[in-house]
Amino acid sequence: MHDLAGADPALRFSPYCWRTRFALAHKGLAVETIPWRFTDRDAIAFSGQYRVPVLQDDGRTVFDSWSIAEYLEETCPAPTLFGGAVGRAHARFVNAWADAVLVGGIAKLIIRDLLDIVDPQDRAYFRASREARFGQTLEEIQAGREERVLAFRDTLTPLRLVLRRQEWLGGPAPSYADHIVSGTFMWPRCASAFPLLADDDPLCAWQERMLDLYGGLARSAVTVLGSHD
Amino acid sequence: MHDLAGADPALRFSPYCWRTRFALAHKGLAVETIPWRFTDRDAIAFSGQYRVPVLQDDGRTVFDSWSIAEYLEETCPAPTLFGGAVGRAHARFVNAWADAVLVGGIAKLIIRDLLDIVDPQDRAYFRASREARFGQTLEEIQAGREERVLAFRDTLTPLRLVLRRQEWLGGPAPSYADHIVSGTFMWPRCASAFPLLADDDPLCAWQERMLDLYGGLARSAVTVLGSHD
Repeated sequence: MHDLAGADPALRFSPYCWRTRFALAHKGLAVETIPWRFTDRDAIAFSGQYRVPVLQDDGRTVFDSWSIAEYLEETCPAPTLFGGAVGRAHARFVNAWADAVLVGGIAKLIIRDLLDIVDPQDRAYFRASREARFGQTLEEIQAGREERVLAFRDTLTPLRLVLRRQEWLGGPAPSYADHIVSGTFMWPRCASAFPLLADDDPLCAWQERMLDLYGGLARSAVTVLGSHD
Repeated sequence: MHDLAGADPALRFSPYCWRTRFALAHKGLAVETIPWRFTDRDAIAFSGQYRVPVLQDDGRTVFDSWSIAEYLEETCPAPTLFGGAVGRAHARFVNAWADAVLVGGIAKLIIRDLLDIVDPQDRAYFRASREARFGQTLEEIQAGREERVLAFRDTLTPLRLVLRRQEWLGGPAPSYADHIVSGTFMWPRCASAFPLLADDDPLCAWQERMLDLYGGLARSAVTVLGSHD
């Protein structure tokens, strides 16, 4: 699996690659991750596109975190990621919400921090592509985050309402819905020192449980603050 | 089933009662609805609380739209609302998102309109309770909605992303996730003339399909603009 890495090859911070890492661990599948940078287009040209994660399995190539999750569920049904077709359809809403609200919201809070951790070969590309997308400099996008983070925290209300009633987004056990959301939160955790959640946020308890899953896969991840191992 | 009604007893506009109406229709279950007003507390005191929907079935009383959906799924498994335990857990996220983002967002756009359609006996209660909750007059809450509706429409992005990939929130067939969201949209449709969606919103096609389901249950509903029959 090609996995986005920073200047430190052990620093893995893509919210989409983390969804896939969790899904693979959920299935109990071993994976070799290959550090990849934004400008390593040639390295994944075989996939026909230029984004990670790209999974290679037994001669097959699958890309896009959602498609990879569907592929894993089909090729390796247990333990389930989706709990059937309706569960998968409903998880799509969680995925869409995470892409629109979480990724969009978090980007505006940490995007300048990302410049400090991407590989030197990626810096010019990263700044130019993101500034073109947002129509602002990275510094302008991130400005005022200490105030703006409060509104971001408000957008997490649906998560809090659910986790008040059940232990995981998947119910009594984690599902791909948990991987989507916690994978997305691994991005700021690994790439930025900015505290996204308040210390007393009830989401922290769920996040701690996620960090412990799969032998502490996420807890042991290298972050900009160093390894938590 | 006790169902919130306006001054016109045929005008039914509760977003939670509509979720239940859709769920019952999905199961093919006939239901007698009893018009209820906010101040008819005595009429549902038997349920031990003061909100609708309240479902009475074969000597049992169930309240709260989510609990009613779980009850229906248990007592009448087919056709399924949730597609199993994981599908149900994931639907809880849709329910929480609808409560926080949709109900919260729509309230601020139509709350003054509601005063015009509630029963005369409910008017003083409705104004006092809502103004206490928001800390503003109904007129102040609703002010500026022509501009604010644009930000509301942005919050619907996750729905659009999902419905670009599948016909219903439940996948190839409607599920309780569709009932949650479309039930919530029945509230402004029935109670207000304010146009919530732009005419060219891709959500309109899904909404039209929902209106046609179950023999046109939702399309034939009486609205403030009159019956669409």
